[in-house]
Amino acid sequence: MEDPLDALRSLMASHSPVLDALVVPSEDYHQSEYVSVRDKRREFVSGFTGSAGLALITMTEARLWTDGRYFLQATQQLSDRWKLMRIGEDPTVETWIAENLPKDTTVGCDPWCVSIGTVQRWEHAFTIKQQRLVQMSTNLVDEVWANRPPPEVEPVVDHPLEFAGCAVADKLKDLRENLSQEKARGIIITALDEVAWLYNVRGTDVSYSPVVHAYAIVTSNSAFFYVDKKKVSSEVSSYMEENGIEVRDYGAVSSDVVLLASNQLNHTSATKGTQSEVPKDGGSDSTETNFTGNDKSVAKEKTHDLIWADPSSCCYALYSKLNCDQVLLQQSPLALAKAIKNPVELDGLRQAHIRDGAAVVQYLVWLDKQMQEIYGASGYFLETEGTNKRKHSETRKLTEVTASDKLEGFRATKEYFKGLSFPTISSVGPNAAIIHYAPESKKCSELEADSIYLFDSGAQYLDGTTDITRTVHFGKPSAHEKACYTAVLQGHIALDCARFPNGTNGHALDILARIPLWKDGLDYRHGTGHGIGSYLNVHEGPHLISFRPQARNVALQASMTVTDEPGYYEDGNFGIRLENVLIVKEASTKFNFGDKGYLSFEHITWAPYQKKLMDLSRLAPEEIEWVNTYHSRCRDILAPYLDKSEMAWLKKATEPISV
Amino acid sequence: MEDPLDALRSLMASHSPVLDALVVPSEDYHQSEYVSVRDKRREFVSGFTGSAGLALITMTEARLWTDGRYFLQATQQLSDRWKLMRIGEDPTVETWIAENLPKDTTVGCDPWCVSIGTVQRWEHAFTIKQQRLVQMSTNLVDEVWANRPPPEVEPVVDHPLEFAGCAVADKLKDLRENLSQEKARGIIITALDEVAWLYNVRGTDVSYSPVVHAYAIVTSNSAFFYVDKKKVSSEVSSYMEENGIEVRDYGAVSSDVVLLASNQLNHTSATKGTQSEVPKDGGSDSTETNFTGNDKSVAKEKTHDLIWADPSSCCYALYSKLNCDQVLLQQSPLALAKAIKNPVELDGLRQAHIRDGAAVVQYLVWLDKQMQEIYGASGYFLETEGTNKRKHSETRKLTEVTASDKLEGFRATKEYFKGLSFPTISSVGPNAAIIHYAPESKKCSELEADSIYLFDSGAQYLDGTTDITRTVHFGKPSAHEKACYTAVLQGHIALDCARFPNGTNGHALDILARIPLWKDGLDYRHGTGHGIGSYLNVHEGPHLISFRPQARNVALQASMTVTDEPGYYEDGNFGIRLENVLIVKEASTKFNFGDKGYLSFEHITWAPYQKKLMDLSRLAPEEIEWVNTYHSRCRDILAPYLDKSEMAWLKKATEPISV
Repeated sequence: MEDPLDALRSLMASHSPVLDALVVPSEDYHQSEYVSVRDKRREFVSGFTGSAGLALITMTEARLWTDGRYFLQATQQLSDRWKLMRIGEDPTVETWIAENLPKDTTVGCDPWCVSIGTVQRWEHAFTIKQQRLVQMSTNLVDEVWANRPPPEVEPVVDHPLEFAGCAVADKLKDLRENLSQEKARGIIITALDEVAWLYNVRGTDVSYSPVVHAYAIVTSNSAFFYVDKKKVSSEVSSYMEENGIEVRDYGAVSSDVVLLASNQLNHTSATKGTQSEVPKDGGSDSTETNFTGNDKSVAKEKTHDLIWADPSSCCYALYSKLNCDQVLLQQSPLALAKAIKNPVELDGLRQAHIRDGAAVVQYLVWLDKQMQEIYGASGYFLETEGTNKRKHSETRKLTEVTASDKLEGFRATKEYFKGLSFPTISSVGPNAAIIHYAPESKKCSELEADSIYLFDSGAQYLDGTTDITRTVHFGKPSAHEKACYTAVLQGHIALDCARFPNGTNGHALDILARIPLWKDGLDYRHGTGHGIGSYLNVHEGPHLISFRPQARNVALQASMTVTDEPGYYEDGNFGIRLENVLIVKEASTKFNFGDKGYLSFEHITWAPYQKKLMDLSRLAPEEIEWVNTYHSRCRDILAPYLDKSEMAWLKKATEPISV
Repeated sequence: MEDPLDALRSLMASHSPVLDALVVPSEDYHQSEYVSVRDKRREFVSGFTGSAGLALITMTEARLWTDGRYFLQATQQLSDRWKLMRIGEDPTVETWIAENLPKDTTVGCDPWCVSIGTVQRWEHAFTIKQQRLVQMSTNLVDEVWANRPPPEVEPVVDHPLEFAGCAVADKLKDLRENLSQEKARGIIITALDEVAWLYNVRGTDVSYSPVVHAYAIVTSNSAFFYVDKKKVSSEVSSYMEENGIEVRDYGAVSSDVVLLASNQLNHTSATKGTQSEVPKDGGSDSTETNFTGNDKSVAKEKTHDLIWADPSSCCYALYSKLNCDQVLLQQSPLALAKAIKNPVELDGLRQAHIRDGAAVVQYLVWLDKQMQEIYGASGYFLETEGTNKRKHSETRKLTEVTASDKLEGFRATKEYFKGLSFPTISSVGPNAAIIHYAPESKKCSELEADSIYLFDSGAQYLDGTTDITRTVHFGKPSAHEKACYTAVLQGHIALDCARFPNGTNGHALDILARIPLWKDGLDYRHGTGHGIGSYLNVHEGPHLISFRPQARNVALQASMTVTDEPGYYEDGNFGIRLENVLIVKEASTKFNFGDKGYLSFEHITWAPYQKKLMDLSRLAPEEIEWVNTYHSRCRDILAPYLDKSEMAWLKKATEPISV
């Protein structure tokens, strides 16, 4: 097969204007993290399969930017025609272009695949050398992608109130209050999970995220749902109609944004069949224009005439159809509304995590047995070196993929199971050092009696999304592995135990999980926690716990979810990560200095930590007590979901550590 | 005496243009924190004596903005004609003006007393309602201040190399390298400590800070020192000449900045006696202009023609004499150069803190005796309630001021002592809750056998500046006081023990000192640490450990100094603070993940913590070990400076806590 790089360079050269560089982001038209197979353009072009990354192609070079989770994986997957750019260490793509490409360079980009904020940042950098960002009317990658998968046509389903916890009418009411407060007469909603959350619908267009490829526009008196109508059953149609939502074709969003801009967007006035202005298979936008300057970010003095667009999720293509001075560029109010879970969602998440924890324990019990039987491992509990010799035939061998399939199998037996929430990270030894490692059947490793095994996995249940990581060893861990596991556990516990006043953001909290690692000169190149959806995206904003500047923007608030997942990764040797999901809750502190109110965390993930991997001499008495308390609750909470032998195993795994 | 408010309002009304509002900042012409008595304009106007604050006067209102350290003090000192605005809780002054004063409001301000950055921030806020900031040619406060103290005429002295550790020639060489790197042909240095540090001179113009009222301008081939020539002896004159520095009159800086702008500033070309364009006693600037827009912040594409001015320290008055497009608005390179101490300064600081610690111990020994003798207190060691009855006559009574005078006396016996580094905070019971309490002889409290006593004090020694806080109790502390003291101590220890990779800033570290307090819903309304000078300002940037956004701007680096001073303050009851000075040093970690290099702290302050105030049941074994190790080193280090009975007391105070 021809390398797409060559085909792309031909198109860049014959393009008018000639493109000196082409940017291929990993996002789809909705700035999604997980995208459908036909939207994996960056992966198709570069061969790098990670969930985050951006490719830049010039006539002589090809560079791929990705973050610390993927450095090792990218090194392995990129051919020698590509150069890896490490986010956080190397210059950003815009700085690199400004510093390394000549004056007047022309950089092409599909305006549907980049957010407003990204374009503004790039254009600002490009002004220095009068470099030019060109909005492409067609996506060049789609043109060279011969076997691009066809569009998916999966049904839209409604998400019942017993799981959603809040009716669409109430969500629309709150949203319209937000609009009124900000003197906006309409909002363009492009993030897939925001559309799904607002209208209480779900779908299967994208693996792992139960969302539908759709846009929404809401004004003070109308609401629109832009989706391929073939996906909408008559039941869902009625449901939409009952809620005052008009279903329009996916492609109509383009022309409707133009109508919205001129205040002419009304229910049923503009629905004439299936306009298709969102380009498909090469695109159909007729005009190709330069991106305009970043003066667009200045909203005019507030009238009731603004149109709200989220600069981090709304694509530049839709934004460019508005007058810049009528746009309110501000984080979508749905981001925070969705992040603060309602009581029904919180309860659903708690229940989903219990069933999920039971599946994880069942997997560990099964795996422990297999490791002993197949590999002669000493097992989960004993700390002697395994024989590491296979006792049985080749047919019984366990690989990272066959093991994780079994884990999925245990989850699939659980009520409300709808699929995985992300590709399971099932990794042995050195593979565990690849933070977002995704094993492939043909190339993955076999399990080993004397290596660390890390699995980071989660599922979509109707009542909640889960995400858990445990790291285990079925043989004799080294003192170094134990020391590292213990430091990771200490950071995990320190964050779990934090109490903090309202107003504290995840940037401030991040250090708590790192301090025990830093003591030994260890660290990890990823954030400490992300929000998690309620039967929605496994990574959900707007808050996060991280050293990244974004983590400063949103304070943690009661009823948010967030993960607690420090780690340590030693390239070529092993990786360790421990992850629970936490709910932010009001803390009952003895005092309330400053009348701010204090917050703390409730962990809702239930699966044991492996005592064998702990260096008890490094643990403080309160840390040991934390483990014992957690383990004791694990036993009580998971008991109803386990059979007798599983329960016997769990009892042993959760026996208190004696101090 | 007439309230200055009334006099000022008359002047505002008769001013042309009429002023609707007048801003009176607390800073002098050099944006100093501690200012000379004749520069205490904001204090004169408002009656509030704190070191930080800003007064805004309109025809009908008077408001004073200050920060959390001073909320309580300001409440007590401001008359009912004033309203306190709490920084961090209330809107900023510019937001308040923009939101509450009418369109076209005219706001007056002395451009010598505000920094470039402040003016830019204000003007940005004022554009919303076309409000206008007017550069006053005279300072209205000076006009109404009948008994304003006369200018000080204190000698400039050179600061010998044995203490400074780096010759002026070397500092100038480094500075000129910075200029060349940034393509600047000159720099205007206005911060008093930067001038003193660069030229290795000291003075006594300002209480507590051994600085001289002076400016400096340095170009690639010239260096100027603007100072009242009456302060310059022939020795200092020669010293300056030897170092290639031309001494010019203080007032000449104005016209020299104009010459610098047109590239005509040369040695001796412009020195004709004593120009005086820096206004004195009402000012002599002839033109009064509007502040110009904030487009000044954009420097033109870099040539070797830029003039460097620090937006946070350079006054707007000097900046307004430059062409905006020739200015490099960037933190002065001297800020970081001064903050990273050289080995001689580090050693001097260590030595100064040992002598200072000995003085603190001598004070505690003396105070313990007095408290028992005069007040029948049970004393530093015993934990029974004192009789709280004075045993002796009124003449022997101890007040916050007489006690702190004694402390100064002990310090004064020490080698290289030059004075205090800030007004001693000596505070009993409820006064200790006033974070920056400064007792006054006539109004201060008497010491009490059964109240907490907090003293925060420091001195200027030729070899280093000190700053230490200890909190003690000579009777029976309550369980609540002990719990709070212990939480503060835990935060103090947690920060002291931190190890962190290069690149970590003080914003990230701040939380470490708060977590133990937050656990109980307690907190403190001030930062956790500030840099400290080498026989210079006791508060020194550019780094700090704080929740404030500024703390994000500068990473901590090896050889910086920083304080570690968490606290807890209960209005009306008591206050607790513990403060050591730390030196940032390279840490010898077992590993070095990411090849960043790791840092840790060395504490250089030596004085015991009172064991009686610790709730040992709340302390972890490592915390107790930390206290024991610290105490044992205290004893060894201070021994050479104490007599037999003092040493006996210290031995008792530092006996190990048995676990």
